[in-house]
Amino acid sequence: MARLYHVPLSPFCRKVRLTLAEKRIEVELLEEKYWEPTQDFMRRNPAGKVPVLRHDGKMLSESQAICEYLDETIPNPPLVPKNPDARYEMRRLCTWFDDKFHVEVTSNLLYERVNKKIMNAGYPDSGRIKMGSARIKFHLDYMDWLLGQRRWLAGNDMTLADFTAAAHLSCLDYINDVDWSRSSLVHEWYSKIKSRPAFRTLLADQLPGLPPPAHYTDLDF
Amino acid sequence: MARLYHVPLSPFCRKVRLTLAEKRIEVELLEEKYWEPTQDFMRRNPAGKVPVLRHDGKMLSESQAICEYLDETIPNPPLVPKNPDARYEMRRLCTWFDDKFHVEVTSNLLYERVNKKIMNAGYPDSGRIKMGSARIKFHLDYMDWLLGQRRWLAGNDMTLADFTAAAHLSCLDYINDVDWSRSSLVHEWYSKIKSRPAFRTLLADQLPGLPPPAHYTDLDF
Repeated sequence: MARLYHVPLSPFCRKVRLTLAEKRIEVELLEEKYWEPTQDFMRRNPAGKVPVLRHDGKMLSESQAICEYLDETIPNPPLVPKNPDARYEMRRLCTWFDDKFHVEVTSNLLYERVNKKIMNAGYPDSGRIKMGSARIKFHLDYMDWLLGQRRWLAGNDMTLADFTAAAHLSCLDYINDVDWSRSSLVHEWYSKIKSRPAFRTLLADQLPGLPPPAHYTDLDF
Repeated sequence: MARLYHVPLSPFCRKVRLTLAEKRIEVELLEEKYWEPTQDFMRRNPAGKVPVLRHDGKMLSESQAICEYLDETIPNPPLVPKNPDARYEMRRLCTWFDDKFHVEVTSNLLYERVNKKIMNAGYPDSGRIKMGSARIKFHLDYMDWLLGQRRWLAGNDMTLADFTAAAHLSCLDYINDVDWSRSSLVHEWYSKIKSRPAFRTLLADQLPGLPPPAHYTDLDF
């Protein structure tokens, strides 16, 4: 069976979990305190990061590289479009969320509120939280603009770009940092993603001492 | 003709320039002060970053998405392997350099020494420069380890992973921050890349008031 070294509220791990579940690959989840790296862990991934996936005797790291690899080796259901223009748009948006959204929103909200606590790394920086709360509005508006033109973020089919965005937003939703009333299009898009069987693994996460808000698991939120 | 909005010492722009040159796509280079964004620029790329490539009537952003798109639409010479395992390894290493190397080395050395000056953003932070100078050793050693097993970084063929690494290292070489004597394998690898016709565009860069060291343009460095 595949094994994923992960932490529950990591958008990068969640993206891989969504992809594995969508491809119906059974996986054993192992929590890895990557901020206290052991020699074993550094051998699995010298970059010192999660996710790391053990699959078919290989050790794979870097979420985007893992997800594209899974899509190439297990083509159904497809998460990467066939057409080069659509593939470009999917990859552009994966980077949008894994880089820009991550730096401006995820780091400022999730890492300040949760990761610092888990890692015993001091108190949240209120300036950063304020910045993250302001920037998430811009990103929800950008998603609203995209979804005004297409059924899914990168086009009319669901792709890895949707899983990437949903992975980040689901972590922020766990700490009640997403204003779903801002855009009905984004709300509707997240409803569709959230009701997929692949999403169940994320909705089952429970961090000790940090319960999610009631609407987190509610499909009719 | 294609047009690239760029800055000369950006590893992400350089990666696209290398790919365009390798694919023999003529391109007009336009410097873009992305840190003083205009409305026009934000329309071209709402992420507010360079590179942005105008190509075949499209506006393309995000260097990795652009390079994979160019490889898919202009397959020769190939920069992305055919085999899924080799593609995975290439993508893993592209992210290694564009994320880990970028955060640990490029940001600490290049952005402190050069970007802060160009952007009038204060003096270099000596702590960050020290950190970058220490971390680049780890990365050169990792490259040495990879090149001990393969002809190129991701396997026995040259790929986008080599261009990604060379794009970062060439910027650092411009400011004389690479110790080429640390690994003869890395030195030999860089010699091979540097002598490709595609590399000429990078060697011709000259920043006003910031000349490169003599060895920067020397193929026999």
